[in-house]
Amino acid sequence: MKTDISDLRGDFPILDQLVNDEPLTYLDNAATAQKPNQVVAALTHFYQTDNANVHRGVHTLAERATAAYEDARHKVTHFINAAEPAEVIFTKGATDSLNLIASTYGEANIEAGDEIVISIMEHHSNLIPWQQLALRKHATLKYIELTPTGELDMADAETKITDKTKIVAVAHASNVMGTVNPIAALTKMAHQHGAIMVCDGAQAVPHMPVDVQALDVDFYAFSGHKMMAPTGIGVLYGKRDLLAAMPPYQFGGEMINFVHRYESTWNELPWKFEAGTQNIAGAVGLGAAIDYLENLGMSNVQAHEQQLVNSLLPQLTADRQIEVYGPHDPARHTGVIAFNIKGLHPHDVATALDMEGVAVRAGHHCAQPLMETLGLVATARASLYIYNTQDDVDRLIHALNETKEFFSHELIKAE
Amino acid sequence: MKTDISDLRGDFPILDQLVNDEPLTYLDNAATAQKPNQVVAALTHFYQTDNANVHRGVHTLAERATAAYEDARHKVTHFINAAEPAEVIFTKGATDSLNLIASTYGEANIEAGDEIVISIMEHHSNLIPWQQLALRKHATLKYIELTPTGELDMADAETKITDKTKIVAVAHASNVMGTVNPIAALTKMAHQHGAIMVCDGAQAVPHMPVDVQALDVDFYAFSGHKMMAPTGIGVLYGKRDLLAAMPPYQFGGEMINFVHRYESTWNELPWKFEAGTQNIAGAVGLGAAIDYLENLGMSNVQAHEQQLVNSLLPQLTADRQIEVYGPHDPARHTGVIAFNIKGLHPHDVATALDMEGVAVRAGHHCAQPLMETLGLVATARASLYIYNTQDDVDRLIHALNETKEFFSHELIKAE
Repeated sequence: MKTDISDLRGDFPILDQLVNDEPLTYLDNAATAQKPNQVVAALTHFYQTDNANVHRGVHTLAERATAAYEDARHKVTHFINAAEPAEVIFTKGATDSLNLIASTYGEANIEAGDEIVISIMEHHSNLIPWQQLALRKHATLKYIELTPTGELDMADAETKITDKTKIVAVAHASNVMGTVNPIAALTKMAHQHGAIMVCDGAQAVPHMPVDVQALDVDFYAFSGHKMMAPTGIGVLYGKRDLLAAMPPYQFGGEMINFVHRYESTWNELPWKFEAGTQNIAGAVGLGAAIDYLENLGMSNVQAHEQQLVNSLLPQLTADRQIEVYGPHDPARHTGVIAFNIKGLHPHDVATALDMEGVAVRAGHHCAQPLMETLGLVATARASLYIYNTQDDVDRLIHALNETKEFFSHELIKAE
Repeated sequence: MKTDISDLRGDFPILDQLVNDEPLTYLDNAATAQKPNQVVAALTHFYQTDNANVHRGVHTLAERATAAYEDARHKVTHFINAAEPAEVIFTKGATDSLNLIASTYGEANIEAGDEIVISIMEHHSNLIPWQQLALRKHATLKYIELTPTGELDMADAETKITDKTKIVAVAHASNVMGTVNPIAALTKMAHQHGAIMVCDGAQAVPHMPVDVQALDVDFYAFSGHKMMAPTGIGVLYGKRDLLAAMPPYQFGGEMINFVHRYESTWNELPWKFEAGTQNIAGAVGLGAAIDYLENLGMSNVQAHEQQLVNSLLPQLTADRQIEVYGPHDPARHTGVIAFNIKGLHPHDVATALDMEGVAVRAGHHCAQPLMETLGLVATARASLYIYNTQDDVDRLIHALNETKEFFSHELIKAE
């Protein structure tokens, strides 16, 4: 196992560049992760050796491409501990996966008066599909609120999840506050009331061990690009019985059994949900990213990020000019940290940090209802991954100090 | 301009390999095309230099990635002569594009009793979405039939397209018979009756100059992977007024303006239809593929394939042991040729050809209603692209002769 992180940075040539004459410090991993050479090499190898369309071909390249594509599905199956490859559907990304569930399971199972329960910390991708489904169906959308420390209020969840609830949909980890939600407990609650549990794992799967059977979730969605895989590939995990009972999402090649002029029948799982040519090379790249992560070991990935959070978070929370949103306890925090310098607009902060080579995001982070609840319009957000180092943390702190210095006039006015 | 095809093959290292001890002859281009080094290099460059998530970032990498992504949209706009980039929506592929139209425009505009007219030569991706829409809406699906030579029966089209017609959806070029359909004439007919025209360009855009404004189509769909771009990227062109009036397809990040707890408003075109992180690198790769094709010149691409068809098609139609489906006139034919060796199952033919290094497809080609109409279960299909040569044509003919020799016993029985 390769755990020396200084060695590992060599796998990411993008990190070895100057931005505004400073070494790049990439802290925008919650938006998208960088790709190791191994993933780019897998793409190149596929395109230069095996590229063909899958499933329907009998020629050698088509057989090799099909094997590579289905091998990637097996890797995902093992990585999240799905019961079988038929439960792993390749999608365009987490957003595509969540829309698929809302448009098929949701459309078929939600009726007027039913209730859908989500949390107020959801990313728009796990919020608007349910909001719009509720509007279409005259169902009720309910929000689980936050505790004062930015965690999910489980007492509130107990009151919101009732026998009227048909779907509970909550993120495994917040893309803003770095909160990790108790998905297994929520799933138990949902199941006790006869509801299904949907989990948005986009901010969890890249950063911690995830076992969908241990969580007992009914659906679990995530994106490849946030876990070092290519853009345009994602996964929807679903329990076989639910997937089998659902209508297809898109129609086209590959997802059919028989097509007649006026009616059609559908293919078996998982292909029923994979209409048309999929992102074959993207799936192969996702397989390579999983190999890379498994070689590191997901517990080591998590421990490495935890170590950096243990250094970064207390420095930010101790700074009286900085406000940190979400839990202040490093032990209850992923590597995603939202903050503001009091009196400064986060876009100005992000721009100033970029002048120091430090890449963070500023905005509403596709979580406007959360922002509204926190009484904010926007925050800056630093987010860590496996290739970040103590050096990166030090550079961020240094650049924040430079930023405060530069804007000292505004800051004094704000106090 | 680079028009020496023997030079060009050096851009495709995948072609320089032995399959079953024979040089690979790749004739499965209607399924997917090979990628030149330039496209793979664009992907590698993006991932190793600029990779970041787009639009919402103010840091340097995010700005570079956004510029690269939107630059690709400009290239597509120019390539198909759309009026403006807002009319070019990035999708997962042609299937995704066509499902988008059926699920948004179709869902909003089709009512019980309305009629949708498609052709019997449609690929499942431009057939099942309309078939299922018609079933959901109690609308009527009508098919334009074929002439005896495998072309679209325009007299039949005249009777099928009426004032009840709301949508006409026809492929620009058949993925089975290589027929090119008179899209401009069909569009005129559709518009005269107040219907919109949807065109599936998956088999046309890679192979001939396409001008969506000259065709006057309302929607035009195609895939990147069939035109040497990466897998998982495609395009939906739509006229601004129609796109602007349509509800969104998927919900999530990037496609919104404001998200409140119980309602949301949508972003401007084209982003209203691009929910979540798109296949950013795939779009950049599509841009590189367009550069490659424009450097060759689409008229030259078309002329090169025509030259090969002029050689291949008459050899096949002249062979009394071979049956060719679709037009026999090379001048009315793309580089897609469906055929059978009489008395042999096309899967056996494809397997035998693969033993000679020749990659063709065998099956229903995702066009079962067409197969049924032709009285067939399956065909073999050879399909050409810009890197194919007269040598490839000769190898196919040689391998077909070997195959007939090998199966001569079956062939005699069949006669």
